Amino acid sequence: MKSEKSTIETSQIGQNVLIAEYCVIRANVKIGTNVIIHPNVIINEYVEIGDNVEIFPGVLIGKEPKGPDILSRAINFEKRVKIGDSCSVGPNSIIYYDVEIGNNCLIGDAVAIRENCKVGARCILGRQVSLNYNVVIGDGSVIMTKSHITGNTKIGNNVFISVCVSMANDNNFGSLGYDEKLIQGPVIGDYAKIGVGAIILPNIRIGDNALVAAGAVVTRDVEKNSEVMGIPARHIRYLPPVGRK
Amino acid sequence: MKSEKSTIETSQIGQNVLIAEYCVIRANVKIGTNVIIHPNVIINEYVEIGDNVEIFPGVLIGKEPKGPDILSRAINFEKRVKIGDSCSVGPNSIIYYDVEIGNNCLIGDAVAIRENCKVGARCILGRQVSLNYNVVIGDGSVIMTKSHITGNTKIGNNVFISVCVSMANDNNFGSLGYDEKLIQGPVIGDYAKIGVGAIILPNIRIGDNALVAAGAVVTRDVEKNSEVMGIPARHIRYLPPVGRK
Amino acid sequence: MKSEKSTIETSQIGQNVLIAEYCVIRANVKIGTNVIIHPNVIINEYVEIGDNVEIFPGVLIGKEPKGPDILSRAINFEKRVKIGDSCSVGPNSIIYYDVEIGNNCLIGDAVAIRENCKVGARCILGRQVSLNYNVVIGDGSVIMTKSHITGNTKIGNNVFISVCVSMANDNNFGSLGYDEKLIQGPVIGDYAKIGVGAIILPNIRIGDNALVAAGAVVTRDVEKNSEVMGIPARHIRYLPPVGRK
Repeated sequence: MKSEKSTIETSQIGQNVLIAEYCVIRANVKIGTNVIIHPNVIINEYVEIGDNVEIFPGVLIGKEPKGPDILSRAINFEKRVKIGDSCSVGPNSIIYYDVEIGNNCLIGDAVAIRENCKVGARCILGRQVSLNYNVVIGDGSVIMTKSHITGNTKIGNNVFISVCVSMANDNNFGSLGYDEKLIQGPVIGDYAKIGVGAIILPNIRIGDNALVAAGAVVTRDVEKNSEVMGIPARHIRYLPPVGRK
Repeated sequence: MKSEKSTIETSQIGQNVLIAEYCVIRANVKIGTNVIIHPNVIINEYVEIGDNVEIFPGVLIGKEPKGPDILSRAINFEKRVKIGDSCSVGPNSIIYYDVEIGNNCLIGDAVAIRENCKVGARCILGRQVSLNYNVVIGDGSVIMTKSHITGNTKIGNNVFISVCVSMANDNNFGSLGYDEKLIQGPVIGDYAKIGVGAIILPNIRIGDNALVAAGAVVTRDVEKNSEVMGIPARHIRYLPPVGRK
Repeated sequence: MKSEKSTIETSQIGQNVLIAEYCVIRANVKIGTNVIIHPNVIINEYVEIGDNVEIFPGVLIGKEPKGPDILSRAINFEKRVKIGDSCSVGPNSIIYYDVEIGNNCLIGDAVAIRENCKVGARCILGRQVSLNYNVVIGDGSVIMTKSHITGNTKIGNNVFISVCVSMANDNNFGSLGYDEKLIQGPVIGDYAKIGVGAIILPNIRIGDNALVAAGAVVTRDVEKNSEVMGIPARHIRYLPPVGRK
């Protein structure tokens, strides 16, 4: 059922798709089967939506990143988005171009995902989470409400990032412009756990199964299986490797 | 005045109600008298709006929580929402099902309220505040911009929570699944005050009229009338009981 | 090209303006030349948009601040907004009345700007940034994702505020009501840099070219050219004045 009150320019729509009122679906969009699109959703050109996806009201998929006139970073993009099967995209979420979301992901309310991000399968991005540009997330990882993932960050599989975690990628506070060798976010290993309100500085390596305590400020690399705590974060103890608990 | 450009399926609308353009009001919605509904608002089935309420653009009221397929927590809900008299609901706010908001509340911009929350009368929820599931807030409490209230939290009357406060409810980082005995947010007493950027760990009791200083990380219970500070938060002094200042 | 599916009440629209579907442009709005307005945008009365502006979906410009019935602060406003030339306003951003944005600003996704704010030219306000009431920002300043600028704050020229920075303006947690002599946010000098997750307390002066390290809690004034760190923030070293590096 497609509402006559919506603007639907594409014809590549699968069986059993509901498009509610006041949506705009531009040309060259592909929508799978059994998809529900709530009111006020905007899907721009060259977006591909898998089967069994639900898109809640006010979502925007396919935003062009703004040009470099007042940004120091030049932005190139191919103008494509792929949302995997059985995903849910929460109300008012904003997904830029050149984003790929794996199958069975839950994208919460008012999430914002910048260009050139890749999210694996079975991930949860909580409410108001922001992924900046060039973020790669493995399978089965969880990022809780209001956490911010900085640009050029790599997050492994089965990582758990609690609420209100923040990160930076530039020790020069923007003063040297954008040089991808200098502007690097954290690299976070598989099964790592980051506590509520922790702060991770640029270019930090956090090993597999490491644990960063709530409120820690991580200024140096964290070994695998290490629990760190405090400001600056210091090693407290080793955790049993995953699978041996 | 009801715009012909909106979709209005319900008939239970009081006197002197304005519904602007591109709204969707589903069936079985009850709207009181003297209500203003701005454009692009979506109100789903079984929502009840009191008298003298103003709902700003882009608001969604009545969102079904997503099922448990990739969440560890099973979600039951009755599919009802009640917004009290003389409330204001800010632009782009998202209110799930099984939420009750008391009279005379100010819900700010882009607030997100999950299922099964109960907010008392005369509360203020600031911009981008998030309430997770099963949060209970008393009367006259204020939660300022960008603070996050974790699931299963109890907040008393006349509590003041400053901006960017965060909380957690699970010391196991999701690794043991959802067990409501283990997953418990803070319990915050009447007249307590929580400073900017404070972090409160799971299952903490904060006594009546206690004060948590800015940036503190609260790892242990806080006595009533106690002011705590630092990381971890420690007792500094006792405050005069409320009413004796 | 103006979509027939939008509601356009004003006639003061320049050449080469695109207004997409399901927009509401009220009377007495002025729109310059070469402006792009994406779907679902709402522009209320007495808003003025410059030339070469792009406004992304779901934006609301011109929100009346709510009255003082449950707020302690009386709100006066003139009901005007001015967005300068060549600005971009990101999806779902909310701009209240009595706001002035200079030329060439980039307003990110889901930014919220309260009444009586003035932003200079060539500023960047990152995603989910919130400016409370009466904030003044100079030219060329950058406020990154999720930072919150409290009411009655002054930010100079070429300031860099990293992600997730928070501030307060009331040492009395609202308990004494609103008195503008008591309710004062920080004053931040030109070229100052504030690190990720820093917290700045009410009425703090941060000097020109000062640097606040990540995670610091600033409880006392910071001298110009001083780098401060820790909780509470302490002076670490002097930085070379701007222009001498």
